[in-house]
Amino acid sequence: MFFHIKELQYPARCEKPDPLLAKRVQEILAGKFGEMTVAMQYLFQGWNLRSDVDSKYKDLLLDTGTEELAHVEIVATLIARLLDNAPWKDQEIIAAQNPIVAAILGGMNPQHAIFAGLGALPTDSVGYPWNGRYVTATGNLLTDLRDNLAKESGGRTETVRVYESTIDAGVRDTLAFLIARDTMHQNQWAAAIAELEAKEGFVAPGTFPQECENREFSYKFFNLSRGEASARGRWAHGPTPDSKGVFQYIACPLPVGDRPQLPPAPPYIHDTPPHVLNNHISVPPMK
Amino acid sequence: MFFHIKELQYPARCEKPDPLLAKRVQEILAGKFGEMTVAMQYLFQGWNLRSDVDSKYKDLLLDTGTEELAHVEIVATLIARLLDNAPWKDQEIIAAQNPIVAAILGGMNPQHAIFAGLGALPTDSVGYPWNGRYVTATGNLLTDLRDNLAKESGGRTETVRVYESTIDAGVRDTLAFLIARDTMHQNQWAAAIAELEAKEGFVAPGTFPQECENREFSYKFFNLSRGEASARGRWAHGPTPDSKGVFQYIACPLPVGDRPQLPPAPPYIHDTPPHVLNNHISVPPMK
Amino acid sequence: MFFHIKELQYPARCEKPDPLLAKRVQEILAGKFGEMTVAMQYLFQGWNLRSDVDSKYKDLLLDTGTEELAHVEIVATLIARLLDNAPWKDQEIIAAQNPIVAAILGGMNPQHAIFAGLGALPTDSVGYPWNGRYVTATGNLLTDLRDNLAKESGGRTETVRVYESTIDAGVRDTLAFLIARDTMHQNQWAAAIAELEAKEGFVAPGTFPQECENREFSYKFFNLSRGEASARGRWAHGPTPDSKGVFQYIACPLPVGDRPQLPPAPPYIHDTPPHVLNNHISVPPMK
Amino acid sequence: MFFHIKELQYPARCEKPDPLLAKRVQEILAGKFGEMTVAMQYLFQGWNLRSDVDSKYKDLLLDTGTEELAHVEIVATLIARLLDNAPWKDQEIIAAQNPIVAAILGGMNPQHAIFAGLGALPTDSVGYPWNGRYVTATGNLLTDLRDNLAKESGGRTETVRVYESTIDAGVRDTLAFLIARDTMHQNQWAAAIAELEAKEGFVAPGTFPQECENREFSYKFFNLSRGEASARGRWAHGPTPDSKGVFQYIACPLPVGDRPQLPPAPPYIHDTPPHVLNNHISVPPMK
Amino acid sequence: MFFHIKELQYPARCEKPDPLLAKRVQEILAGKFGEMTVAMQYLFQGWNLRSDVDSKYKDLLLDTGTEELAHVEIVATLIARLLDNAPWKDQEIIAAQNPIVAAILGGMNPQHAIFAGLGALPTDSVGYPWNGRYVTATGNLLTDLRDNLAKESGGRTETVRVYESTIDAGVRDTLAFLIARDTMHQNQWAAAIAELEAKEGFVAPGTFPQECENREFSYKFFNLSRGEASARGRWAHGPTPDSKGVFQYIACPLPVGDRPQLPPAPPYIHDTPPHVLNNHISVPPMK
Amino acid sequence: MFFHIKELQYPARCEKPDPLLAKRVQEILAGKFGEMTVAMQYLFQGWNLRSDVDSKYKDLLLDTGTEELAHVEIVATLIARLLDNAPWKDQEIIAAQNPIVAAILGGMNPQHAIFAGLGALPTDSVGYPWNGRYVTATGNLLTDLRDNLAKESGGRTETVRVYESTIDAGVRDTLAFLIARDTMHQNQWAAAIAELEAKEGFVAPGTFPQECENREFSYKFFNLSRGEASARGRWAHGPTPDSKGVFQYIACPLPVGDRPQLPPAPPYIHDTPPHVLNNHISVPPMK
Repeated sequence: MFFHIKELQYPARCEKPDPLLAKRVQEILAGKFGEMTVAMQYLFQGWNLRSDVDSKYKDLLLDTGTEELAHVEIVATLIARLLDNAPWKDQEIIAAQNPIVAAILGGMNPQHAIFAGLGALPTDSVGYPWNGRYVTATGNLLTDLRDNLAKESGGRTETVRVYESTIDAGVRDTLAFLIARDTMHQNQWAAAIAELEAKEGFVAPGTFPQECENREFSYKFFNLSRGEASARGRWAHGPTPDSKGVFQYIACPLPVGDRPQLPPAPPYIHDTPPHVLNNHISVPPMK
Repeated sequence: MFFHIKELQYPARCEKPDPLLAKRVQEILAGKFGEMTVAMQYLFQGWNLRSDVDSKYKDLLLDTGTEELAHVEIVATLIARLLDNAPWKDQEIIAAQNPIVAAILGGMNPQHAIFAGLGALPTDSVGYPWNGRYVTATGNLLTDLRDNLAKESGGRTETVRVYESTIDAGVRDTLAFLIARDTMHQNQWAAAIAELEAKEGFVAPGTFPQECENREFSYKFFNLSRGEASARGRWAHGPTPDSKGVFQYIACPLPVGDRPQLPPAPPYIHDTPPHVLNNHISVPPMK
Repeated sequence: MFFHIKELQYPARCEKPDPLLAKRVQEILAGKFGEMTVAMQYLFQGWNLRSDVDSKYKDLLLDTGTEELAHVEIVATLIARLLDNAPWKDQEIIAAQNPIVAAILGGMNPQHAIFAGLGALPTDSVGYPWNGRYVTATGNLLTDLRDNLAKESGGRTETVRVYESTIDAGVRDTLAFLIARDTMHQNQWAAAIAELEAKEGFVAPGTFPQECENREFSYKFFNLSRGEASARGRWAHGPTPDSKGVFQYIACPLPVGDRPQLPPAPPYIHDTPPHVLNNHISVPPMK
Repeated sequence: MFFHIKELQYPARCEKPDPLLAKRVQEILAGKFGEMTVAMQYLFQGWNLRSDVDSKYKDLLLDTGTEELAHVEIVATLIARLLDNAPWKDQEIIAAQNPIVAAILGGMNPQHAIFAGLGALPTDSVGYPWNGRYVTATGNLLTDLRDNLAKESGGRTETVRVYESTIDAGVRDTLAFLIARDTMHQNQWAAAIAELEAKEGFVAPGTFPQECENREFSYKFFNLSRGEASARGRWAHGPTPDSKGVFQYIACPLPVGDRPQLPPAPPYIHDTPPHVLNNHISVPPMK
Repeated sequence: MFFHIKELQYPARCEKPDPLLAKRVQEILAGKFGEMTVAMQYLFQGWNLRSDVDSKYKDLLLDTGTEELAHVEIVATLIARLLDNAPWKDQEIIAAQNPIVAAILGGMNPQHAIFAGLGALPTDSVGYPWNGRYVTATGNLLTDLRDNLAKESGGRTETVRVYESTIDAGVRDTLAFLIARDTMHQNQWAAAIAELEAKEGFVAPGTFPQECENREFSYKFFNLSRGEASARGRWAHGPTPDSKGVFQYIACPLPVGDRPQLPPAPPYIHDTPPHVLNNHISVPPMK
Repeated sequence: MFFHIKELQYPARCEKPDPLLAKRVQEILAGKFGEMTVAMQYLFQGWNLRSDVDSKYKDLLLDTGTEELAHVEIVATLIARLLDNAPWKDQEIIAAQNPIVAAILGGMNPQHAIFAGLGALPTDSVGYPWNGRYVTATGNLLTDLRDNLAKESGGRTETVRVYESTIDAGVRDTLAFLIARDTMHQNQWAAAIAELEAKEGFVAPGTFPQECENREFSYKFFNLSRGEASARGRWAHGPTPDSKGVFQYIACPLPVGDRPQLPPAPPYIHDTPPHVLNNHISVPPMK
């Protein structure tokens, strides 16, 4: 159950409205790496976590997910403010008068006015709606936490790019808070990952008996192009991070399988029948 | 440019057709963590990588992406074989004769027959199409590689679950190869991540000056629920993985911002006007 | 900002696991009328609401949105419990032994096991992901509240149908709570709608001057089929709900416009050019 | 079965082409509240309506759906006209010559030229395709009609906003017709809703025995934030619109459920195993 | 403008309800090749067709699109009838009593009951919503008609497969009508294509001056795999269908381009900086 | 299995960066008719092709699909180059200084910077992600090849339009190569179609016994509008392309079916019950 605190976790400020910046900030709200994604991701991970008797991880996930809901609120508020009094009316007139305004009218997300009445949208910077496939919650915590670290890396990268795009001190202040929280969250997930790897091993999931995988292929790098630049990396030699093998570089990998052939489909499927594909009738010259 | 080798990288085998297993294997082909995702992800990362003069990383990415295309081919072929001679015709009759067949007819993906004529589909196990939002290619290599590690962790977790779901020795053999490659790829991305972190620092992106973020919030954990189970983790105390701070546990975090208020929209937007929201007219009793 | 209470708002119970019921319950979690939709819809409406100085409506929206987050949590937990120990392993064997289990294996959402590890998914009952286009938050409160009433009507209808589908007393108890809340929310939104209609008028938005619309067409019903059954309804005669007109039934509506013709596109667009469409060359007999 | 009348129901006019306005008008054609949505929604509702012997409602729905097809045609034609001779060729040159044209080239929907050859698209104002999830057709007519009223409220709100955005007298004339029809349709659905509520009761669906819902929670408002602004509304006291209860305001709602705990998944699922989550091994200090 | 005829163009019959067949028939209603697609595709093509003074093609397109609306109605009605009295209530009980019913309950589309109340849905056979990207209407009529021919080929293939899947004589009768119409429409589009090719030439669009394309590559087949099976087809030798060239088979195609290298991004983008990618620092051994 | 050649099949050049052109070129990369579509379409068709013993068609499909992967690489590289040093930083300042730059900032795809760090995206020109529903691979080769011809016609039409939009000689050179390949591929698929039609007959699929379709309707054109312009085409008279019939023009088509009526749903579905729809209670006047 949740309780709403009417104050924002951190101020959502802008010095002046800017509908184009509002459009860019939507990526931070509801893009693949946006606040809606991490809010929902951490909450679903927490709700779905099984067998956590002492609940340390569940609490970690739900506390952080709850914080991300506050970030959703901050960013949504920021977007609404960036849309204050957006130019919209009689666009032919105001565009003709001022090419900078013309560029704003051409560039702003029209749904900010038409659909949302100058409010935030649960969509990204190109208007594509947030969707549930963004959420990773696999029940395997090591997998989940690695995805969390990737999401926070992506989120911080994106927020930094939006920060660079503007000189608005208010917006930069708000984003500087979100960037700091991404710093924290990258650190926090890395710390939790280290705990789990120490307990369960490096390869996720740690519970699948390695003798069931085809170990002949577990540590080989396949060079599938001419030239061996890829051989110069740490991934091509030396012990593997899981401490169980040694990287091998296969300079000329060969296929192990045969040419695949598929039998005909039954007639009731009406695929192209074999006699059409295979008999060698003479084809009349093209018109 | 690419060249196709007609032989499969590894055999795609099944002991006998099984349309329900074919449906499950679709997740490995074209789900969020499927082979299509990693193929496209690594290729786009490689094509988009800038300033890689010595090309070691670009080669790593493109070699691996090229291998994943081979995996797409293997899994597509496996699915087609699992669909060989799928029961389909006169379903009322064959279902009435055999409840096991009835369950297959009810459970199989109908598009495997109707749309694909007993072939593989670029969709996941519930028939949702693969889409480009699955691809992470941010131009920031550390971010990208962390996402790669997460994707391989998710991919291995999923493949292991499909492996467990069947006793078909052929399918298990094929999946055991893919699982081994996921082991390799988890190791390989981790090795590359270690290289990058050593050069660029832990927090991604490593190029944003940390004094621009709001450092007051860079290492604090916010306990946003009653009870402090979350305080028992490594993320709540001690030095942070980026070696630049110390985790702090904030047991009772307070909002820093105010209650957000938004000014009225201009009349041409036709949001609810202020006088409707705020005047206290007496409302007639409900009918 | 939000605070998480670790206890559920209402117990999420089931008497015994049932993966097929879990699949159906997903519609209530993350379908178009599901708890995720109303949670996000009410929160976005509240965050976007402008000029609400006395904040009665904003508080209404955010309080209710916050409650819906609790419902998301309840339903997610219920789904996880319905998935406890779902049959999955060695499906050929267990299916062959028991046709009822075969039907479960055929019918369950495979992503519940493969992707979510027996957890809830942010998707509906056919596995389609929740998406942001479900959210209505237009800035026009009367419009928004009518959509809220529709969503709660849809939500209650769906929950009732899932309730009827099971005899599990635990699930029915949980759903009976959600159905009661849908009763409340239908009542609550209707009460708020009545307030707004009293202040702003029936037609939304109430701020567009009606003389700007083409009033000749504001109260006419067009009978666009043979037979006049549609004339027997209240919508075909008598005063209109907005108290500004009288319904008129047009038995034989005629077009007012002309046949539309479009000029050719410029050559650089490479549409079919006029001479191809319009010259009457003789076409050779088909082969 | 349908018959096409070659004349438009109402003229689709514009004084001069304007690709940016064409982009905005797409929302009215194929956005969530656009003409395609209501056309398909009313038709599916009509086709799916069961047990309507006297067919008054079915006729209402199909007559109105058929009219909406005419609106789709009008708006599609309007968009094509707004795209007449759109600037497109040699964009570097024409943009450099005129910043207003540069803004048009930057702002127009590129698919209008590349994909549609200066024709209308079945997408909204940000190019997102219309999709079937927009359609509400539940078989419960009260639910459906409430959604219809909401859709017409949203549609009129959006059309009004596009109307305000332009001074083109032709476009305004066409939109003034559509706005008037939205006025009619809001009235018409409200009239039909009143009929149904009189017969079936206020709460949808009216056929679920209220003793099966948890009536303890049917009329309570939960104040889930500090402060009681939400108590000042009609929804917090007095008789409820369904005439069966009295609103109660719960200032401090408490959870009724317990902390949810989930048992471990079976080993074949490869979730994180209990011993990893729960044993308290000492974790080595981070590097 | 449209007029609705209350009678169906052709009877929509089934001998007995069958929810699994209803699910399969959804592909014909609203899959990529379904009736909704061709209805919307032909209508948009007709509405968007420019410069058709004598209106023969526009009429062709709109007449056929109007017919397809009738097919949408037929198939929607058929689905509703296949859902008559679908088993749904107390599923645990009825499933336990009868494994065939268990298979139906497991296999039916749950949204048919939960969302649509036993009505048709604008979704395909796996519940994925119809969307506007299915529609091809490019303004280039030759391109459009070729897509029409492909859509009718796909539609007939799919309808035939559903036909084969059932013994229900009513359903077969309805589908036999639709299959016949697909036969007509394949013929009709081919006839129109022949007219256009005779006027505009084979290659679409016919208006792009061929000297602007790189004619060195206009008629070469690239053999991009070992072995030359592809050389045995008509596409590898002889005159080309456009009568302007001769097919050439390139057994060993070579790249014409260089290895692509991209310059570094500006610092404000925060891609991985060059020094991280290129300097050869020694990396510490992995833990 | 695939092998990557590090050189591009053809140079990907631009004379100078242009983020707006980069946005347009995305349609060619990952729109419905883009290189990703044809790459995946031909590969899936090849992998799924059954019973092709002599493998001529499978080789044709896989060779061409492999070439299209090279095109994906070319176009992705071209986009990255068009994004070199895109203006992004401190947008308020640079926009205020130069309205042309303002138009670029307003018009560019913000995800090119925020998400992709100046790299290509697997999305179309409006940012909508590529998805698997674009792929046609039906197992019926004649159907597939017709779709291939349509896709290449659409692809060439789109590429030509982008070509016309720019004067950049480098981009035009790259596109002139792709346009030439579309010329080849249109020819090649047409040649293969001619082979198949000669073997299997014109109507796809050729294996469904025509006596099973309702032949009364196989060659009739239905004129569903007033006026008979559509009668003037080749599709309205003369022998049909399949050589089995004669086109008939039905000037006044009549419905063959009845008015559809559906029985009530069972009570557990909670559709509107019959007594609500049909009894004629007097409705109180509207308030």
